[in-house]
Amino acid sequence: MLYIVGLGLGDEKDITLRGLEAVRRCQKVYVEAYTSLLSFGLSSDGLSTLEKLYGKPVTLADREMVEEKADSILSEARDSDVAFLVVGDPFGATTHSDLVVRAKQVGINVKVVHNASVINAVGVCGLQLYRYGETVSIPFFTETWRPDSFYEKIKRNRTLGLHTLCLLDIRVKEPSLESLCRGKKLYELPRFMIIETAIEQLLEVEHNRRESVYSEDSTCVGFARLGSEDQMIVAGSMRQLLTVDFGPPLHCLVIVGETHPLEEEMLSFFTCQQAITENKDETKHVVK
Amino acid sequence: MLYIVGLGLGDEKDITLRGLEAVRRCQKVYVEAYTSLLSFGLSSDGLSTLEKLYGKPVTLADREMVEEKADSILSEARDSDVAFLVVGDPFGATTHSDLVVRAKQVGINVKVVHNASVINAVGVCGLQLYRYGETVSIPFFTETWRPDSFYEKIKRNRTLGLHTLCLLDIRVKEPSLESLCRGKKLYELPRFMIIETAIEQLLEVEHNRRESVYSEDSTCVGFARLGSEDQMIVAGSMRQLLTVDFGPPLHCLVIVGETHPLEEEMLSFFTCQQAITENKDETKHVVK
Repeated sequence: MLYIVGLGLGDEKDITLRGLEAVRRCQKVYVEAYTSLLSFGLSSDGLSTLEKLYGKPVTLADREMVEEKADSILSEARDSDVAFLVVGDPFGATTHSDLVVRAKQVGINVKVVHNASVINAVGVCGLQLYRYGETVSIPFFTETWRPDSFYEKIKRNRTLGLHTLCLLDIRVKEPSLESLCRGKKLYELPRFMIIETAIEQLLEVEHNRRESVYSEDSTCVGFARLGSEDQMIVAGSMRQLLTVDFGPPLHCLVIVGETHPLEEEMLSFFTCQQAITENKDETKHVVK
Repeated sequence: MLYIVGLGLGDEKDITLRGLEAVRRCQKVYVEAYTSLLSFGLSSDGLSTLEKLYGKPVTLADREMVEEKADSILSEARDSDVAFLVVGDPFGATTHSDLVVRAKQVGINVKVVHNASVINAVGVCGLQLYRYGETVSIPFFTETWRPDSFYEKIKRNRTLGLHTLCLLDIRVKEPSLESLCRGKKLYELPRFMIIETAIEQLLEVEHNRRESVYSEDSTCVGFARLGSEDQMIVAGSMRQLLTVDFGPPLHCLVIVGETHPLEEEMLSFFTCQQAITENKDETKHVVK
């Protein structure tokens, strides 16, 4: 049996009782390293936090390992119980679908243990989840690669009055350009897009396209470390959010569509000055 | 402190360790009864399952109670730790936003413990979550009230190639028409819309509007008891799904938009005949 277990968003305590039971039942436990690791502090220390809780060793499985060694992971799952742990909910990222498809193709049973993901946890800011349009991803721009397909999607959402969740780029264990040229395995340093970068890129695209989809005055909500004890949520215009130091990743951003009175009331608790004051003691992040 | 704790979708074991710690810390524990109760079997028996796990009494709080006694719940939360337990994730339903707003207005600290919700758990069928458009609700039609605003939204989603999650009506503790007339408190029997009813209503609206937004041949995915041990997931045309007995509630439905190859591969594991065979042993639900 292959268990795909969501770990939730905060730390090791966000696993469900059902998930923990599954992990404890398994002979082998992998934890994905490619979607996001930060919240779980999976340094050698973080790993032992998980290992201590689970009472067994945990193998860190980065994207390369999952892609290259999927067959051996699956053959273990054929003869014994294997857990594959995933930050958030198992189906946030495509890679896990891939593993499930391969398992089912060779007749291995798969059980999924769900958990919170960014997609539903953003509900905490008070914007109703059923009023979101299509989710967009904002990739890191490079000198030569500045894809802006998110602009069309945001435009459609805003035309319909819907909110837009923007997932910000995560680059972990990406082969460096130099490494690709020389045929050696060298990796870029991990990079996590912050809200400031996302807004700068969004405004750059608006500046080029000039279709008035949004502007510096458009209301957004910035989330940092969503679901963890020191999460930070600030609502304000793009211009205002550019001045906020959200601290360590992961970050995500919501571009607010048309709002109902109850949504506005909830958002008001997170508006720029107030939210910063509320969060100050815990997070020590202040306006620049 | 007011803790709003998501219980997840299956049973009492879907609470997170963080959530369980919060509940055990609290002097008073309420569990919402209005969004959905079935998965937790909250008969007197179900309640004691929770009480046994938590080691303390749990008060069932239906909508009426939360609306009428919010002040007293909040005044308890001012002086002590109170947990308010919610099926799924805390921000699936508006009522919880309401409680949070009222708490914050009077200066009571609120902590949210997230969990899986239908919104992200539908990812298990393999349709990518970022390719969903606006979520729609399908209300029970009556003789005189047949609202079809979902039709416009589904049309927009399908025009964009996006999937549509349809949440199906739940009517718990609704005052009966007779009771409203006589000024006595009498309630309708609880009703939970099944997939069959949802599809019939969808097709009725298409038949009246005739904008070819979808048809009996449109591919959908039906979910019953999502996230629980005996969940059932079947992909097929509306016509095919009309012949499937999905068993007890809760049900929900996804109308499939344009699909990528990996999505199709995942869906194929749930197509009508295969899924029924896979699920048969566990659920004893067969094609009519």
